[in-house]
Amino acid sequence: MAYYERDKDDLLQRLRKIEGQVRGVQRMIEEDRYCVDVLTQLAAIRAALNRVSLALFESHTRGCVASAIRSNGGEEAIEELMDVLMKYVK
Amino acid sequence: MAYYERDKDDLLQRLRKIEGQVRGVQRMIEEDRYCVDVLTQLAAIRAALNRVSLALFESHTRGCVASAIRSNGGEEAIEELMDVLMKYVK
Amino acid sequence: MAYYERDKDDLLQRLRKIEGQVRGVQRMIEEDRYCVDVLTQLAAIRAALNRVSLALFESHTRGCVASAIRSNGGEEAIEELMDVLMKYVK
Amino acid sequence: MAYYERDKDDLLQRLRKIEGQVRGVQRMIEEDRYCVDVLTQLAAIRAALNRVSLALFESHTRGCVASAIRSNGGEEAIEELMDVLMKYVK
Repeated sequence: MAYYERDKDDLLQRLRKIEGQVRGVQRMIEEDRYCVDVLTQLAAIRAALNRVSLALFESHTRGCVASAIRSNGGEEAIEELMDVLMKYVK
Repeated sequence: MAYYERDKDDLLQRLRKIEGQVRGVQRMIEEDRYCVDVLTQLAAIRAALNRVSLALFESHTRGCVASAIRSNGGEEAIEELMDVLMKYVK
Repeated sequence: MAYYERDKDDLLQRLRKIEGQVRGVQRMIEEDRYCVDVLTQLAAIRAALNRVSLALFESHTRGCVASAIRSNGGEEAIEELMDVLMKYVK
Repeated sequence: MAYYERDKDDLLQRLRKIEGQVRGVQRMIEEDRYCVDVLTQLAAIRAALNRVSLALFESHTRGCVASAIRSNGGEEAIEELMDVLMKYVK
Protein backbone atom coordinates (compact mmCIF):
# COMPACT_ATOMS: atom_id res chain seq x y z
CA MET A 1 0.00 0.00 0.00
CA ALA A 2 1.34 3.39 -0.94
CA TYR A 3 1.43 5.91 1.89
CA TYR A 4 -0.89 8.28 0.06
CA GLU A 5 -3.65 5.65 0.21
CA ARG A 6 -6.02 7.79 2.25
CA ASP A 7 -5.60 10.77 -0.11
CA LYS A 8 -5.89 8.66 -3.25
CA ASP A 9 -9.36 9.80 -4.24
CA ASP A 10 -8.50 13.42 -3.61
CA LEU A 11 -5.30 13.17 -5.65
CA LEU A 12 -7.06 11.40 -8.53
CA GLN A 13 -9.82 13.98 -8.58
CA ARG A 14 -7.31 16.82 -8.73
CA LEU A 15 -5.36 15.13 -11.50
CA ARG A 16 -8.52 14.54 -13.53
CA LYS A 17 -9.30 18.22 -13.18
CA ILE A 18 -5.77 19.11 -14.31
CA GLU A 19 -6.15 16.76 -17.29
CA GLY A 20 -9.33 18.65 -18.20
CA GLN A 21 -7.52 21.97 -17.85
CA VAL A 22 -4.76 20.77 -20.19
CA ARG A 23 -7.42 19.77 -22.75
CA GLY A 24 -8.99 23.20 -22.24
CA VAL A 25 -5.70 24.87 -23.17
CA GLN A 26 -5.57 22.75 -26.33
CA ARG A 27 -9.00 24.07 -27.25
CA MET A 28 -7.89 27.65 -26.53
CA ILE A 29 -5.00 27.21 -28.93
CA GLU A 30 -7.16 25.58 -31.61
CA GLU A 31 -9.51 28.56 -31.33
CA ASP A 32 -6.60 31.05 -31.56
CA ARG A 33 -7.36 32.53 -28.16
CA TYR A 34 -5.27 35.43 -26.93
CA CYS A 35 -1.80 34.28 -25.82
CA VAL A 36 -1.96 36.08 -22.48
CA ASP A 37 -5.15 34.21 -21.61
CA VAL A 38 -3.46 30.93 -22.51
CA LEU A 39 -0.43 31.87 -20.37
CA THR A 40 -2.72 32.73 -17.45
CA GLN A 41 -4.43 29.37 -17.76
CA LEU A 42 -1.08 27.55 -17.97
CA ALA A 43 0.02 29.34 -14.78
CA ALA A 44 -3.15 28.06 -13.07
CA ILE A 45 -2.38 24.49 -14.18
CA ARG A 46 1.19 24.85 -12.92
CA ALA A 47 -0.15 25.99 -9.53
CA ALA A 48 -2.60 23.08 -9.40
CA LEU A 49 0.18 20.61 -10.22
CA ASN A 50 2.33 22.13 -7.49
CA ARG A 51 -0.47 21.57 -4.99
CA VAL A 52 -0.65 17.90 -5.98
CA SER A 53 3.13 17.62 -5.54
CA LEU A 54 2.97 19.28 -2.13
CA ALA A 55 0.24 16.85 -1.03
CA LEU A 56 2.46 13.97 -2.13
CA PHE A 57 5.50 15.42 -0.35
CA GLU A 58 3.40 15.56 2.78
CA SER A 59 2.03 12.03 2.63
CA HIS A 60 5.45 10.69 1.61
CA THR A 61 7.11 12.36 4.60
CA ARG A 62 4.37 11.28 7.00
CA GLY A 63 4.48 7.77 5.56
CA CYS A 64 7.60 6.33 3.95
CA VAL A 65 10.09 8.79 5.41
CA ALA A 66 8.73 8.67 8.98
CA SER A 67 8.59 4.90 8.84
CA ALA A 68 12.18 4.68 7.57
CA ILE A 69 13.33 7.06 10.32
CA ARG A 70 11.74 4.85 12.95
CA SER A 71 13.06 1.58 11.54
CA ASN A 72 16.58 2.38 10.28
CA GLY A 73 17.37 6.04 10.95
CA GLY A 74 16.02 7.09 7.56
CA GLU A 75 19.33 8.19 6.03
CA GLU A 76 18.50 6.84 2.58
CA ALA A 77 14.86 7.91 2.64
CA ILE A 78 15.85 11.49 3.49
CA GLU A 79 18.51 11.55 0.79
CA GLU A 80 15.96 10.37 -1.76
CA LEU A 81 13.46 12.96 -0.56
CA MET A 82 16.05 15.71 -1.02
CA ASP A 83 16.94 14.47 -4.50
CA VAL A 84 13.35 14.84 -5.64
CA LEU A 85 12.85 18.11 -3.73
CA MET A 86 15.75 19.53 -5.75
CA LYS A 87 13.65 19.14 -8.90
CA TYR A 88 11.09 21.50 -7.37
CA VAL A 89 13.18 24.17 -5.66
CA LYS A 90 14.76 25.91 -8.65
CA MET B 1 -5.11 35.05 -36.06
CA ALA B 2 -3.19 34.47 -32.87
CA TYR B 3 0.50 35.22 -33.09
CA TYR B 4 1.45 31.66 -32.21
CA GLU B 5 -0.21 30.49 -35.45
CA ARG B 6 2.96 29.04 -36.92
CA ASP B 7 3.75 27.12 -33.70
CA LYS B 8 0.21 25.89 -33.25
CA ASP B 9 0.83 22.27 -34.24
CA ASP B 10 3.93 22.09 -32.11
CA LEU B 11 2.11 23.56 -29.09
CA LEU B 12 -0.86 21.21 -29.54
CA GLN B 13 1.40 18.20 -29.84
CA ARG B 14 3.24 19.13 -26.64
CA LEU B 15 -0.03 19.69 -24.77
CA ARG B 16 -1.39 16.34 -25.93
CA LYS B 17 1.77 14.72 -24.61
CA ILE B 18 1.36 16.55 -21.30
CA GLU B 19 -2.28 15.41 -21.13
CA GLY B 20 -1.05 11.83 -21.59
CA GLN B 21 1.54 12.32 -18.85
CA VAL B 22 -1.15 13.58 -16.46
CA ARG B 23 -3.21 10.47 -17.23
CA GLY B 24 -0.07 8.41 -16.64
CA VAL B 25 0.26 9.89 -13.14
CA GLN B 26 -3.36 8.98 -12.44
CA ARG B 27 -2.55 5.39 -13.36
CA MET B 28 0.56 5.47 -11.13
CA ILE B 29 -1.61 6.54 -8.21
CA GLU B 30 -4.29 3.96 -8.95
CA GLU B 31 -1.55 1.31 -8.96
CA ASP B 32 -0.10 2.62 -5.66
CA ARG B 33 3.24 3.37 -7.23
CA TYR B 34 6.03 4.70 -5.05
CA CYS B 35 5.45 8.37 -4.13
CA VAL B 36 8.96 9.45 -5.12
CA ASP B 37 8.40 8.07 -8.64
CA VAL B 38 5.11 9.98 -8.84
CA LEU B 39 6.84 13.17 -7.64
CA THR B 40 9.59 12.70 -10.25
CA GLN B 41 6.99 12.30 -12.97
CA LEU B 42 5.09 15.40 -11.75
CA ALA B 43 8.34 17.39 -11.89
CA ALA B 44 8.76 16.28 -15.52
CA ILE B 45 5.22 17.46 -16.33
CA ARG B 46 5.92 20.77 -14.64
CA ALA B 47 9.06 21.20 -16.75
CA ALA B 48 7.15 20.33 -19.94
CA LEU B 49 4.42 22.86 -19.06
CA ASN B 50 7.08 25.50 -18.44
CA ARG B 51 8.51 24.87 -21.89
CA VAL B 52 5.06 25.40 -23.44
CA SER B 53 4.71 28.66 -21.48
CA LEU B 54 8.16 29.83 -22.61
CA ALA B 55 7.25 29.12 -26.25
CA LEU B 56 4.10 31.19 -25.80
CA PHE B 57 6.00 34.02 -24.11
CA GLU B 58 8.31 34.04 -27.10
CA SER B 59 5.63 34.09 -29.80
CA HIS B 60 3.59 36.61 -27.80
CA THR B 61 6.57 38.96 -27.54
CA ARG B 62 7.53 38.49 -31.19
CA GLY B 63 3.89 38.96 -32.22
CA CYS B 64 1.44 40.99 -30.15
CA VAL B 65 4.00 42.88 -28.06
CA ALA B 66 6.27 43.81 -30.99
CA SER B 67 3.28 44.86 -33.04
CA ALA B 68 1.93 47.04 -30.20
CA ILE B 69 5.36 48.62 -29.72
CA ARG B 70 5.46 49.55 -33.40
CA SER B 71 1.92 50.87 -33.54
CA ASN B 72 1.37 52.65 -30.22
CA GLY B 73 4.53 52.40 -28.13
CA GLY B 74 3.40 49.19 -26.47
CA GLU B 75 2.92 50.56 -22.94
CA GLU B 76 -0.19 48.50 -22.27
CA ALA B 77 1.08 45.37 -24.00
CA ILE B 78 4.26 45.40 -21.92
CA GLU B 79 2.34 45.98 -18.70
CA GLU B 80 0.10 43.03 -19.51
CA LEU B 81 3.13 40.89 -20.34
CA MET B 82 4.68 41.74 -16.97
CA ASP B 83 1.46 40.93 -15.12
CA VAL B 84 1.41 37.43 -16.52
CA LEU B 85 5.19 36.99 -16.13
CA MET B 86 4.71 37.68 -12.42
CA LYS B 87 2.67 34.46 -12.18
CA TYR B 88 5.73 32.53 -13.36
CA VAL B 89 8.64 34.19 -11.57
CA LYS B 90 7.94 33.20 -7.97
CA MET C 1 22.85 54.74 -20.49
CA ALA C 2 21.17 51.56 -19.33
CA TYR C 3 17.43 51.46 -19.86
CA TYR C 4 16.73 51.05 -16.15
CA GLU C 5 18.23 54.49 -15.52
CA ARG C 6 15.07 56.00 -14.07
CA ASP C 7 14.58 52.99 -11.70
CA LYS C 8 18.22 52.91 -10.66
CA ASP C 9 17.73 54.35 -7.18
CA ASP C 10 14.79 52.10 -6.51
CA LEU C 11 16.72 49.01 -7.68
CA LEU C 12 19.78 49.93 -5.61
CA GLN C 13 17.68 50.52 -2.53
CA ARG C 14 16.02 47.12 -2.89
CA LEU C 15 19.35 45.39 -3.42
CA ARG C 16 20.83 47.06 -0.35
CA LYS C 17 17.84 45.80 1.63
CA ILE C 18 18.38 42.28 0.24
CA GLU C 19 22.07 42.48 1.15
CA GLY C 20 21.02 43.33 4.71
CA GLN C 21 18.59 40.42 4.76
CA VAL C 22 21.35 38.04 3.65
CA ARG C 23 23.54 39.33 6.48
CA GLY C 24 20.57 38.85 8.80
CA VAL C 25 20.37 35.17 7.83
CA GLN C 26 24.09 34.81 8.58
CA ARG C 27 23.41 36.15 12.07
CA MET C 28 20.47 33.77 12.49
CA ILE C 29 22.74 30.84 11.67
CA GLU C 30 25.52 32.08 13.95
CA GLU C 31 22.94 32.30 16.75
CA ASP C 32 21.63 28.77 15.99
CA ARG C 33 18.15 30.04 15.25
CA TYR C 34 15.45 27.54 14.40
CA CYS C 35 15.85 26.15 10.84
CA VAL C 36 12.24 26.81 9.87
CA ASP C 37 12.66 30.48 10.74
CA VAL C 38 15.80 30.62 8.61
CA LEU C 39 13.97 28.91 5.73
CA THR C 40 11.10 31.40 6.02
CA GLN C 41 13.54 34.29 5.88
CA LEU C 42 15.34 32.77 2.87
CA ALA C 43 11.97 32.46 1.10
CA ALA C 44 11.38 36.17 1.74
CA ILE C 45 14.77 37.04 0.24
CA ARG C 46 14.01 34.86 -2.78
CA ALA C 47 10.73 36.72 -3.28
CA ALA C 48 12.47 40.11 -2.95
CA LEU C 49 15.10 39.05 -5.51
CA ASN C 50 12.34 37.92 -7.88
CA ARG C 51 10.74 41.34 -7.61
CA VAL C 52 14.02 43.00 -8.57
CA SER C 53 14.32 40.65 -11.55
CA LEU C 54 10.74 41.40 -12.64
CA ALA C 55 11.45 45.14 -12.48
CA LEU C 56 14.51 44.60 -14.67
CA PHE C 57 12.55 42.44 -17.12
CA GLU C 58 10.07 45.27 -17.39
CA SER C 59 12.57 48.07 -17.96
CA HIS C 60 14.58 45.89 -20.33
CA THR C 61 11.49 45.13 -22.44
CA ARG C 62 10.34 48.75 -22.38
CA GLY C 63 13.84 49.94 -23.23
CA CYS C 64 16.31 47.73 -25.12
CA VAL C 65 13.79 45.26 -26.54
CA ALA C 66 11.29 47.91 -27.70
CA SER C 67 14.08 49.96 -29.20
CA ALA C 68 15.47 46.93 -31.07
CA ILE C 69 11.99 46.06 -32.36
CA ARG C 70 11.60 49.55 -33.73
CA SER C 71 15.05 49.71 -35.31
CA ASN C 72 15.70 46.20 -36.66
CA GLY C 73 12.71 43.97 -35.94
CA GLY C 74 14.13 42.86 -32.60
CA GLU C 75 14.76 39.21 -33.52
CA GLU C 76 18.02 39.00 -31.61
CA ALA C 77 16.83 41.07 -28.65
CA ILE C 78 13.79 38.81 -28.20
CA GLU C 79 15.89 35.67 -28.47
CA GLU C 80 18.24 37.01 -25.81
CA LEU C 81 15.27 37.95 -23.60
CA MET C 82 13.91 34.41 -23.88
CA ASP C 83 17.28 32.87 -23.06
CA VAL C 84 17.44 34.75 -19.78
CA LEU C 85 13.73 34.20 -19.04
CA MET C 86 14.41 30.47 -19.28
CA LYS C 87 16.63 30.78 -16.20
CA TYR C 88 13.63 32.04 -14.24
CA VAL C 89 10.74 29.87 -15.46
CA LYS C 90 11.73 26.48 -14.04
CA MET D 1 22.03 23.51 19.34
CA ALA D 2 20.46 23.90 15.92
CA TYR D 3 20.45 20.77 13.81
CA TYR D 4 22.51 22.40 11.09
CA GLU D 5 25.39 22.77 13.54
CA ARG D 6 27.78 20.60 11.56
CA ASP D 7 27.00 22.49 8.31
CA LYS D 8 27.22 25.90 9.95
CA ASP D 9 30.55 26.93 8.46
CA ASP D 10 29.52 25.76 5.02
CA LEU D 11 26.20 27.64 5.22
CA LEU D 12 27.88 30.82 6.46
CA GLN D 13 30.49 30.68 3.73
CA ARG D 14 27.81 30.31 1.07
CA LEU D 15 25.78 33.18 2.50
CA ARG D 16 28.83 35.43 2.62
CA LYS D 17 29.42 34.61 -1.05
CA ILE D 18 25.77 35.42 -1.83
CA GLU D 19 26.10 38.71 0.07
CA GLY D 20 29.11 39.54 -2.13
CA GLN D 21 27.13 38.65 -5.25
CA VAL D 22 24.31 40.98 -4.19
CA ARG D 23 26.85 43.76 -3.71
CA GLY D 24 28.25 42.89 -7.15
CA VAL D 25 24.81 43.42 -8.71
CA GLN D 26 24.60 46.82 -7.01
CA ARG D 27 27.89 47.73 -8.66
CA MET D 28 26.62 46.48 -12.04
CA ILE D 29 23.61 48.76 -11.73
CA GLU D 30 25.70 51.74 -10.60
CA GLU D 31 27.88 51.20 -13.68
CA ASP D 32 24.82 50.93 -15.99
CA ARG D 33 25.71 47.42 -17.04
CA TYR D 34 23.53 45.68 -19.62
CA CYS D 35 20.21 44.55 -18.10
CA VAL D 36 20.48 41.00 -19.46
CA ASP D 37 23.83 40.58 -17.70
CA VAL D 38 22.26 41.81 -14.46
CA LEU D 39 19.34 39.41 -14.91
CA THR D 40 21.75 36.53 -15.53
CA GLN D 41 23.64 37.38 -12.35
CA LEU D 42 20.39 37.65 -10.36
CA ALA D 43 19.40 34.19 -11.63
CA ALA D 44 22.73 32.85 -10.37
CA ILE D 45 22.10 34.39 -6.92
CA ARG D 46 18.61 32.89 -6.88
CA ALA D 47 20.09 29.46 -7.66
CA ALA D 48 22.72 29.85 -4.91
CA LEU D 49 20.03 30.85 -2.39
CA ASN D 50 17.97 27.80 -3.39
CA ARG D 51 20.96 25.57 -2.70
CA VAL D 52 21.29 27.06 0.80
CA SER D 53 17.57 26.44 1.38
CA LEU D 54 17.85 22.84 0.17
CA ALA D 55 20.77 22.25 2.53
CA LEU D 56 18.66 23.60 5.39
CA PHE D 57 15.66 21.47 4.37
CA GLU D 58 17.95 18.48 4.51
CA SER D 59 19.50 19.18 7.90
CA HIS D 60 16.11 20.17 9.31
CA THR D 61 14.55 16.88 8.15
CA ARG D 62 17.50 14.82 9.36
CA GLY D 63 17.50 16.70 12.66
CA CYS D 64 14.37 18.30 14.06
CA VAL D 65 11.84 16.39 11.98
CA ALA D 66 13.43 12.96 12.48
CA SER D 67 13.78 13.62 16.19
CA ALA D 68 10.12 14.70 16.46
CA ILE D 69 9.01 11.59 14.54
CA ARG D 70 10.89 9.37 16.97
CA SER D 71 9.68 11.14 20.10
CA ASN D 72 6.05 12.08 19.37
CA GLY D 73 5.10 10.90 15.90
CA GLY D 74 6.15 14.16 14.31
CA GLU D 75 2.70 15.37 13.23
CA GLU D 76 3.38 18.99 14.08
CA ALA D 77 6.95 19.00 12.80
CA ILE D 78 5.81 17.62 9.42
CA GLU D 79 2.99 20.13 9.19
CA GLU D 80 5.43 22.95 9.86
CA LEU D 81 7.85 21.55 7.28
CA MET D 82 5.08 21.51 4.68
CA ASP D 83 4.06 25.06 5.50
CA VAL D 84 7.53 26.33 4.75
CA LEU D 85 7.96 24.05 1.73
CA MET D 86 4.85 25.68 0.26
CA LYS D 87 6.77 28.96 0.09
CA TYR D 88 9.31 27.29 -2.21
CA VAL D 89 7.17 25.12 -4.50
CA LYS D 90 5.35 27.78 -6.50
